[in-house]
Amino acid sequence: MTVTYTLSVSEARFWGFPRLLARWKGSIYRLMYREMIAFLFAYYLLAFFYRYLFNAELQRKFESIAHYCHGFTEVVPITFVLGFYVTFIVGRWWQQYCNIPWPDRLAIQISAYVQGADERGRMIRRSLIRYVNQISILTFQYTSTIIKARFPTLDHLVEAGIMTSDEKDVIENTETPHGIWWVPAQWFGQLAMVARKEGRIHDDLHLKSLIDEMLSFRGCCGNIWSYDWISVPLVYTQVVTIAVYSFFVSCLFGRQFLFQYPPGSNQSAAHEIDFYIPLFTIFQFFFYVGWLKVAEAMICPFGADDEDFEINWVIDRNLQVGYLIIDRMYRQLPKLTKDAFWD
Amino acid sequence: MTVTYTLSVSEARFWGFPRLLARWKGSIYRLMYREMIAFLFAYYLLAFFYRYLFNAELQRKFESIAHYCHGFTEVVPITFVLGFYVTFIVGRWWQQYCNIPWPDRLAIQISAYVQGADERGRMIRRSLIRYVNQISILTFQYTSTIIKARFPTLDHLVEAGIMTSDEKDVIENTETPHGIWWVPAQWFGQLAMVARKEGRIHDDLHLKSLIDEMLSFRGCCGNIWSYDWISVPLVYTQVVTIAVYSFFVSCLFGRQFLFQYPPGSNQSAAHEIDFYIPLFTIFQFFFYVGWLKVAEAMICPFGADDEDFEINWVIDRNLQVGYLIIDRMYRQLPKLTKDAFWD
Amino acid sequence: MTVTYTLSVSEARFWGFPRLLARWKGSIYRLMYREMIAFLFAYYLLAFFYRYLFNAELQRKFESIAHYCHGFTEVVPITFVLGFYVTFIVGRWWQQYCNIPWPDRLAIQISAYVQGADERGRMIRRSLIRYVNQISILTFQYTSTIIKARFPTLDHLVEAGIMTSDEKDVIENTETPHGIWWVPAQWFGQLAMVARKEGRIHDDLHLKSLIDEMLSFRGCCGNIWSYDWISVPLVYTQVVTIAVYSFFVSCLFGRQFLFQYPPGSNQSAAHEIDFYIPLFTIFQFFFYVGWLKVAEAMICPFGADDEDFEINWVIDRNLQVGYLIIDRMYRQLPKLTKDAFWD
Amino acid sequence: MTVTYTLSVSEARFWGFPRLLARWKGSIYRLMYREMIAFLFAYYLLAFFYRYLFNAELQRKFESIAHYCHGFTEVVPITFVLGFYVTFIVGRWWQQYCNIPWPDRLAIQISAYVQGADERGRMIRRSLIRYVNQISILTFQYTSTIIKARFPTLDHLVEAGIMTSDEKDVIENTETPHGIWWVPAQWFGQLAMVARKEGRIHDDLHLKSLIDEMLSFRGCCGNIWSYDWISVPLVYTQVVTIAVYSFFVSCLFGRQFLFQYPPGSNQSAAHEIDFYIPLFTIFQFFFYVGWLKVAEAMICPFGADDEDFEINWVIDRNLQVGYLIIDRMYRQLPKLTKDAFWD
Amino acid sequence: MTVTYTLSVSEARFWGFPRLLARWKGSIYRLMYREMIAFLFAYYLLAFFYRYLFNAELQRKFESIAHYCHGFTEVVPITFVLGFYVTFIVGRWWQQYCNIPWPDRLAIQISAYVQGADERGRMIRRSLIRYVNQISILTFQYTSTIIKARFPTLDHLVEAGIMTSDEKDVIENTETPHGIWWVPAQWFGQLAMVARKEGRIHDDLHLKSLIDEMLSFRGCCGNIWSYDWISVPLVYTQVVTIAVYSFFVSCLFGRQFLFQYPPGSNQSAAHEIDFYIPLFTIFQFFFYVGWLKVAEAMICPFGADDEDFEINWVIDRNLQVGYLIIDRMYRQLPKLTKDAFWD
Repeated sequence: MTVTYTLSVSEARFWGFPRLLARWKGSIYRLMYREMIAFLFAYYLLAFFYRYLFNAELQRKFESIAHYCHGFTEVVPITFVLGFYVTFIVGRWWQQYCNIPWPDRLAIQISAYVQGADERGRMIRRSLIRYVNQISILTFQYTSTIIKARFPTLDHLVEAGIMTSDEKDVIENTETPHGIWWVPAQWFGQLAMVARKEGRIHDDLHLKSLIDEMLSFRGCCGNIWSYDWISVPLVYTQVVTIAVYSFFVSCLFGRQFLFQYPPGSNQSAAHEIDFYIPLFTIFQFFFYVGWLKVAEAMICPFGADDEDFEINWVIDRNLQVGYLIIDRMYRQLPKLTKDAFWD
Repeated sequence: MTVTYTLSVSEARFWGFPRLLARWKGSIYRLMYREMIAFLFAYYLLAFFYRYLFNAELQRKFESIAHYCHGFTEVVPITFVLGFYVTFIVGRWWQQYCNIPWPDRLAIQISAYVQGADERGRMIRRSLIRYVNQISILTFQYTSTIIKARFPTLDHLVEAGIMTSDEKDVIENTETPHGIWWVPAQWFGQLAMVARKEGRIHDDLHLKSLIDEMLSFRGCCGNIWSYDWISVPLVYTQVVTIAVYSFFVSCLFGRQFLFQYPPGSNQSAAHEIDFYIPLFTIFQFFFYVGWLKVAEAMICPFGADDEDFEINWVIDRNLQVGYLIIDRMYRQLPKLTKDAFWD
Repeated sequence: MTVTYTLSVSEARFWGFPRLLARWKGSIYRLMYREMIAFLFAYYLLAFFYRYLFNAELQRKFESIAHYCHGFTEVVPITFVLGFYVTFIVGRWWQQYCNIPWPDRLAIQISAYVQGADERGRMIRRSLIRYVNQISILTFQYTSTIIKARFPTLDHLVEAGIMTSDEKDVIENTETPHGIWWVPAQWFGQLAMVARKEGRIHDDLHLKSLIDEMLSFRGCCGNIWSYDWISVPLVYTQVVTIAVYSFFVSCLFGRQFLFQYPPGSNQSAAHEIDFYIPLFTIFQFFFYVGWLKVAEAMICPFGADDEDFEINWVIDRNLQVGYLIIDRMYRQLPKLTKDAFWD
Repeated sequence: MTVTYTLSVSEARFWGFPRLLARWKGSIYRLMYREMIAFLFAYYLLAFFYRYLFNAELQRKFESIAHYCHGFTEVVPITFVLGFYVTFIVGRWWQQYCNIPWPDRLAIQISAYVQGADERGRMIRRSLIRYVNQISILTFQYTSTIIKARFPTLDHLVEAGIMTSDEKDVIENTETPHGIWWVPAQWFGQLAMVARKEGRIHDDLHLKSLIDEMLSFRGCCGNIWSYDWISVPLVYTQVVTIAVYSFFVSCLFGRQFLFQYPPGSNQSAAHEIDFYIPLFTIFQFFFYVGWLKVAEAMICPFGADDEDFEINWVIDRNLQVGYLIIDRMYRQLPKLTKDAFWD
Repeated sequence: MTVTYTLSVSEARFWGFPRLLARWKGSIYRLMYREMIAFLFAYYLLAFFYRYLFNAELQRKFESIAHYCHGFTEVVPITFVLGFYVTFIVGRWWQQYCNIPWPDRLAIQISAYVQGADERGRMIRRSLIRYVNQISILTFQYTSTIIKARFPTLDHLVEAGIMTSDEKDVIENTETPHGIWWVPAQWFGQLAMVARKEGRIHDDLHLKSLIDEMLSFRGCCGNIWSYDWISVPLVYTQVVTIAVYSFFVSCLFGRQFLFQYPPGSNQSAAHEIDFYIPLFTIFQFFFYVGWLKVAEAMICPFGADDEDFEINWVIDRNLQVGYLIIDRMYRQLPKLTKDAFWD
């Protein structure tokens, strides 16, 4: 589900960005309230032990640990690690969006280049655009949890009218252990060649245009498949996760308000106001864990997160618009008239 | 409204960049004077309470808070978060500029490839270029607050002479719940095919050139629509906003000039000069909030901010120049003569 | 062997990224447990000497060294160096993935443009696709340790049926000291020309399409060869390695828990809890050395690391799918029928 | 005037980069000696007041200010702001270089595709290339202070022989308030069409090649116009300028050598050597202001700075080389002979 | 001379990157041992003066300077400046590699499209490929110190058989003050047109293919020429050089081991162990100066550094492979047979 909010900040105003903080859908709060609760629970549990259950000796020990952890929170370089990592993830996220294939270009060209208003002409045009949509749906079956849930098998495609049962049979009889999402692309090429031979495509140039365009479409699907197959290296994700979580584990201790500081530390126990709420640690939690959660939400953009792309909508739109362009709108034009500025 | 100032700093000189600070239009002052006033008001209000209304005990409490906040202002990593975020926003901003579609390429090709000085020839050329302009205007109706205000409905387009009422009817009768901005692209393809069949376009190659060019134009519009649909992830914007604003909330306390410092802090109350104006905090406010405001002004570049692109001008120019090229300048050439260097 | 895990974090959840820490295959632990063991061994060895074998004077000396090293660990800028370096390596890694050549585009075009169901037609199509696969396999023979191990010589290719013995002879008789991986590309061009002259390719345009497509394929192989030939500058890798390893050498001393601190240092020996396990140094080791190991695993992505691309699978797939498209699926189409939405 | 120095450091040697410091032309010294003089003048003026004119009380006040300023110089994050900003500016600077249009590609194609050695043939070829050069010169008239100074009006172009007076009239009679730099592009298209109809261009494909190439050329000019129109957002430039200059204003005070430090500051007045020259502040001035000046010199690369592109040279070269290729070198070839390696 | 080492670290292992430290060729040691020796010499000279030649008063002065310098070494932001600068240089370095022109694509197309096994056919093909190689060699004559040394004049090219003396005459008689490297590109266009007219090129499409491909080749050469002409702005290089060298000048003083510290500094003279070798300063020297040297070695990649591209090899290979493809391998094909998987 995509969160569109740009227009609401189209003018920079006094309450521009801060007003966005009041949103819930797609917000940082929704993404990380569980983590926040867990962190605060652990924090207060520790505080309770330290204050009410520990004897003096244990308290001194705890203070030593806290001091040691406090020092650690100052040297962990999570800002940069997160900065580089999130930049990398966001780049891939946008690349994946750019590779979502839209059949419009192809549909407009089929509508222009494949002639014949008779039944066979319609059938060829409809088949061409159906093959194209099949390529993308078969791709998303592998790479999107949402489409996988909607169409678990080829039979579901047949039921939904996206594939004929004859096509399903051909795909199932294709002897390849290596994925079959590209099979309709081959049909497209062969059917376009047939249409050329029948003279429905008037020129080799138009045949080439159609096949090139289809290959671009297929290339987009291949890229989406690649982004799924070749994930962000697991090691990189683990490094960042360890950095962020070890920072907050050490905050659990190091940001406690202490009765007294270990001798030799150049701090003193003068902070008695903010006793009950570690306000700034909560802020830090917001932006460090929030930043990591940005990455987590965007690493697989074809799922059901708030930030994910609405693939279901995309597929429905493409099916409908594809047929519309090559069939209903074929040879339909508004009346040519002199326009308003005709002198 | 675009702010163009490059030529005025075309030479690096003594007062090059500093002189730019004296500008008001499109300036940082105009963008953030409200935030600055609010911040200073809160700052002085707190100072007034602290100095004149609080008793000694409250003052000590306040000093503790101030000291705690002061420590926080030193660990918030807003520089990097802002650096990465603004780089990302500026990248998108420029990409969006690059995707503003200009019909010039198409107009020059229509003028060259679609022959016929008779009325029908003119009508076809004018319709082709009108369709193209319709694609972009329908796109901006969705994505630009300014164009939405200028043309709230299709009827306004008909009134402005951008669309014939017949075209409006066809669009309104198109049965698709998924946006209709691409419909004129389909008309373009069909009309080009008609012109080819009538022999007004002499060659399939030229037909292909026109359709390819139109599809690029349409692609630009699709990209603009994408940048609007898929905003910068809300979570990312929220993370940055929280970072910046929590920094300045802590500055409200932590940058107050105190009567005395809490015991144990390694500072002393020796600053008596800058008492009344927190000069450097103001500077910091300028560049941190200024940087965030840069992002805010650029996140939606089709609005009415000083930094936004002048879409109204673009649309007017495109309509006028489009007709000019394919109609008034059709088959018009300056006299071929021997040039000045002819030997 | 590629580690694909994106789908398992397709939804941001409470245990999203942390759950990934429990993986072994392709994990940071597997990549660096040897380094970790070596580091800890050295650390405890030093601690043992310091505590049990040194006399007081040596202990004071050791403490001086430790203090000096501790100061050093705070100024080494490994975060940035690593950030820029890893960004660079990851960029190259992905570029190399993108340049892995897939023959699908070419196969679909051969299947569409090279006509003739007779034996010679089949032979031409099969030869064309075989040449294409040979280009990529000869490339990987040079650049991938895995393919080199699988096909050490041309004879192994002949045995595997990828090359005919006649082709092997021609390659071996090519008088060039400069690499022969591109030779099948020349055959492709010549054979396509032959097919054009025989009329099996109907149009010069299709001939051009095939040759252009083959040249793109060949370009990918050339790029892969380039990434192998022009490594990341050795100096850059050495700089980063020295930075990271000198940091941990200084940690060996500087992060020891000391009996007492040298006079004049503003630290005191108050840390008695974490005595036996330098927990945070271990965390730092995890993310600094882990980050470097990310680079090490990705600098040559055609090897046998967990993060490397499965070139063996790619080659097998390409051989099989190539033949499938241009031979088995040539002129095969599912029956054209009215689809489910036909009105 | 471009500063080319790469070849002089083509080998990394002992005095490689340091030797470059001895250059004056295009150097940092030349770019900022004025700022440096102003800064030092203010610095010593303040020092003079502090030491010789102030009484003890004023001196204590001054020391308080100095201490406060000193603290500020340590928190200003100019490094990153400058890093991101300069990276952005340098990116645009190179993009603008890449968009400088060169007519060579077009000239070679005109020379190959537009046939006819007679007078009209020459006239057509010369007009085509003249139109192309006009597009770029009209563009630079708007965007480069240097070309604007050289050709303030169209009449100057006519005088220089770049435009015929007939062409000037047509341009002046074009009714458009929106810039006329693209008008010769339209002439090119129409004249190419005429040449095609006369049979001087043998094939529609060649016509398309010429028009496509010309549109690329025109696209480059459009991009240059865009980079001028859409400057780096003024706010961004202001933020960076404020950051750098406020840093050095605070250095004026904070880097003074003081008689004594305010009580409570953990510094003491032990620095008596570097009394007269604030050496390291000067170094910092060099690289911070120098970095900003890099941006200032590159933000408008078509001016008269040392780092700017030599547009005058480009235009002269393009005029001369354009005519040379399409006219003097038309149908000229060195004698075809057997080369040295002919066996 | 290129240093290829990727395959030796193709698997991440225990001694992966550290083992690379043992290399000499192309290593950081070779690149900077002179700087290191100079630095250490100056360091020990200063130490010698301070310890043995200075009286007590001078020693105190020296200690003040040292303390002041020590403070400076902590605020110089060389990490970022270097990070951004090296990223920029490395980007250009790789772009320049990518623009090294290879004639293979062109040779394969000439071999396919330019027909005729007779002498004139051979002569045309050989001339075409010779022109192409001339473009690149003339380019490298200007931009590579190595090629300039190998072929100082056009006569050397004639001697080497790369150019005929007739061609040399034509180039020398070309009246242009603006570089003549592009002249053979014009010949190529004219000769291709001749071949088309003679019917040796069968189709205008193939003519266009050849000319387009040649123009891409020429474009690469133009880019290389651009990278040489428009260097990295000198100011930028100077800023970075000043930053790094001023850092190490201050290290010469600030990292000396002192007898005593100036009063008021919060350090004490407790470091007596590392007395004779400033180990960590040496490490820092390694990575800061090493990083700068990376930039210095890569700023001009067509020289004789270890990291530079082997242009001599490239030129020899291109000459040989070019002739091989268009002449020896023209119309040569391995026998078409049924392959191993033929069923």
